[in-house]
Amino acid sequence: METSFISSNIAREIDSLSTLLTFLTDSPWARRDERAEFYDFVFGNPHEPVLPGFTSAMQQSTPPQRNDWHAYQFSDPHACAVVARSLSRDTGIEFDPDLVTMTNGAFSGLSIVLQTILEPGDEVLYTSPPWFFYPSLIRRAGGTPVAIPMDPVTFDLDLDAIEASITPRTRAIIVNSPHNPTGRIYPEATLQRLSSILTAGSKRNGRSIVLVSDEAYRRILFDGRRCPTPAAYYPVTAVVYTFGKAMLTPGERIGFVALAPGFPEPAAMLSGLMTVQVLSGWAFPNSILQHAIDQLDTQLIDLELLQLKRDRVVVGLTDAGYEVTTPEGTFYVVVKSPDADDLVFSDRLAEQGLFILPGAIFDMPGYFRISLTATMEMIDEALPIFASALDPLLAPA
Amino acid sequence: METSFISSNIAREIDSLSTLLTFLTDSPWARRDERAEFYDFVFGNPHEPVLPGFTSAMQQSTPPQRNDWHAYQFSDPHACAVVARSLSRDTGIEFDPDLVTMTNGAFSGLSIVLQTILEPGDEVLYTSPPWFFYPSLIRRAGGTPVAIPMDPVTFDLDLDAIEASITPRTRAIIVNSPHNPTGRIYPEATLQRLSSILTAGSKRNGRSIVLVSDEAYRRILFDGRRCPTPAAYYPVTAVVYTFGKAMLTPGERIGFVALAPGFPEPAAMLSGLMTVQVLSGWAFPNSILQHAIDQLDTQLIDLELLQLKRDRVVVGLTDAGYEVTTPEGTFYVVVKSPDADDLVFSDRLAEQGLFILPGAIFDMPGYFRISLTATMEMIDEALPIFASALDPLLAPA
Repeated sequence: METSFISSNIAREIDSLSTLLTFLTDSPWARRDERAEFYDFVFGNPHEPVLPGFTSAMQQSTPPQRNDWHAYQFSDPHACAVVARSLSRDTGIEFDPDLVTMTNGAFSGLSIVLQTILEPGDEVLYTSPPWFFYPSLIRRAGGTPVAIPMDPVTFDLDLDAIEASITPRTRAIIVNSPHNPTGRIYPEATLQRLSSILTAGSKRNGRSIVLVSDEAYRRILFDGRRCPTPAAYYPVTAVVYTFGKAMLTPGERIGFVALAPGFPEPAAMLSGLMTVQVLSGWAFPNSILQHAIDQLDTQLIDLELLQLKRDRVVVGLTDAGYEVTTPEGTFYVVVKSPDADDLVFSDRLAEQGLFILPGAIFDMPGYFRISLTATMEMIDEALPIFASALDPLLAPA
Repeated sequence: METSFISSNIAREIDSLSTLLTFLTDSPWARRDERAEFYDFVFGNPHEPVLPGFTSAMQQSTPPQRNDWHAYQFSDPHACAVVARSLSRDTGIEFDPDLVTMTNGAFSGLSIVLQTILEPGDEVLYTSPPWFFYPSLIRRAGGTPVAIPMDPVTFDLDLDAIEASITPRTRAIIVNSPHNPTGRIYPEATLQRLSSILTAGSKRNGRSIVLVSDEAYRRILFDGRRCPTPAAYYPVTAVVYTFGKAMLTPGERIGFVALAPGFPEPAAMLSGLMTVQVLSGWAFPNSILQHAIDQLDTQLIDLELLQLKRDRVVVGLTDAGYEVTTPEGTFYVVVKSPDADDLVFSDRLAEQGLFILPGAIFDMPGYFRISLTATMEMIDEALPIFASALDPLLAPA
């Protein structure tokens, strides 16, 4: 009778995500033979045993301590207190547990914040290249995504472009630091100037511009760096976090949204977030995860090892002749594709069982992304393949 | 600067849910003293120890069996196979594992189905009294909710009213059997006639009407009854299920959407559901829950005990002078409020530490709902309070 049961809005999102969805379901990577040898650098997925502390935290939190241990769970006040204390310690500013909402990871956190605040047609700024799903999330929440290219040399925020892009319809800006995929951490001076720009824009508009701070990777830092939060400079900030990166357990969804100290009229915002969570199908983290929060909050993958992997990849690929950027944080290394068509280059590597994420998928054509969640062994075995893939391109025609 | 950060759409939902939200956050029940003695019959929440089989299933599924045990999890094919086999056994019709999507309970299942299929302005029929969130879920997905009162005597579907309510904009109907709150199971003959009505309506419209079958309580049955599924009669059916009722663990979210055998063009629908799940913030059940599915699927609370509780409540309240309906399934007993204002009566009971759900909250004014997930001890101690609450109303003025 009909050609499809899918609404036009969803068809549009499927279309906008088609490069990613095709990669996920119908690429050499998607068809990889799990029994064969291959090197998978595609996503921030675990390739090594999970932290033993995660397993014991979950096992210890499973036996019921009360009859309502597995009852309908909102944001557990104890969990909110733990994450507020921990975030305050990390950032040096005082987060209020009453302004914390527990979420199913950062993805769900972004979704509920945008759904709560956007009027139809409101514009949301974000830096390009973005995390895959920002534009779709903005549209699903009724908003209009406005991409602002990053500085192509420093990979920093282009503050002048942001300032110039603010219109009377601007409702929010998504800032992601450390930035996926470039690994850039935006320095304090940048966040301070951004705050001034947003404050002036809010005043002009007579309506606050909300800063949605995607801090999913805020604990994945190299070289002893720290990650400043915009919440320190701009009170209309919602910090979005997931434990899925620090624990490397993206299949177990827990994270939070923390409103900055001084967030205006927080009670209304919190009631909006809670209502959206309920109406998103009870999108609160599962009880066991919330009960385990004291222990989960202390889990962190081996950053020294991750940094060794980063160095091995950066040095190895640079030595081979690739143009590589050195990330300051996150799981990722962005590399310039030797073939201007990164999809073509990705297919060439895939023939050797080496899988990377082509830049076409994350709005950065001509580049590819390597995830450092691969093992050191995979890196060591992959480097010669990377090198040999370059040869035919370097050789005289 | 602004009066609120909440978008007008969310403000509208907060308003529409205000009776429920006030009850949840600012009622005598919400302010109950956990240390004092009270009798809580409000929600389908556990008041007795969880099934030991649930705890052991979760504990056994927590230690990793592979490095990617906690990796990004879509619908796990093994989980889909288990639930398709189980649903086929329960219903006697053959569900295809490839047409199953794992969800964060039935709430999320309803949300993703509606988001996938609704064009803005599409009408969705549902029976009133509904589960609290149907109208909001329909509106959040862009649709227009159309309430159809149940038969006030039999609590059955009003098929003539359904037939008369189908317009060219009708896209879906939500059918909930066993029905929360009345406990009614719609018989096969009703579902057959419903199928004919929907088939005729779809033909007239040139577009299929999707039957969303909320079967959350399909395993919570009394008196040896069985629960027929509309999927047996109408192929354009999406069966929505949660394990949260059978296991009485609503804080651990796992369920599924199963398209009926013969669902037209299922590939497109499945791709739409998956896309909506991703864009809802990765709304797939957590890995551990999906890994535990073989054991979880065999868990079922003690239905004999639940039926004894039902009988105790029905007989006890009837003897005391209440007008009570006997549920065929679900956790709930619907009782006519002796005071026409069920909120007033609810407050009177609350003064004695006895909490019930007033009908004002579920579109059934003049009634209240009792959850049988309370303990037998609570029931025994509450019955005299129910009886004495009736006295002043029965006494001559």
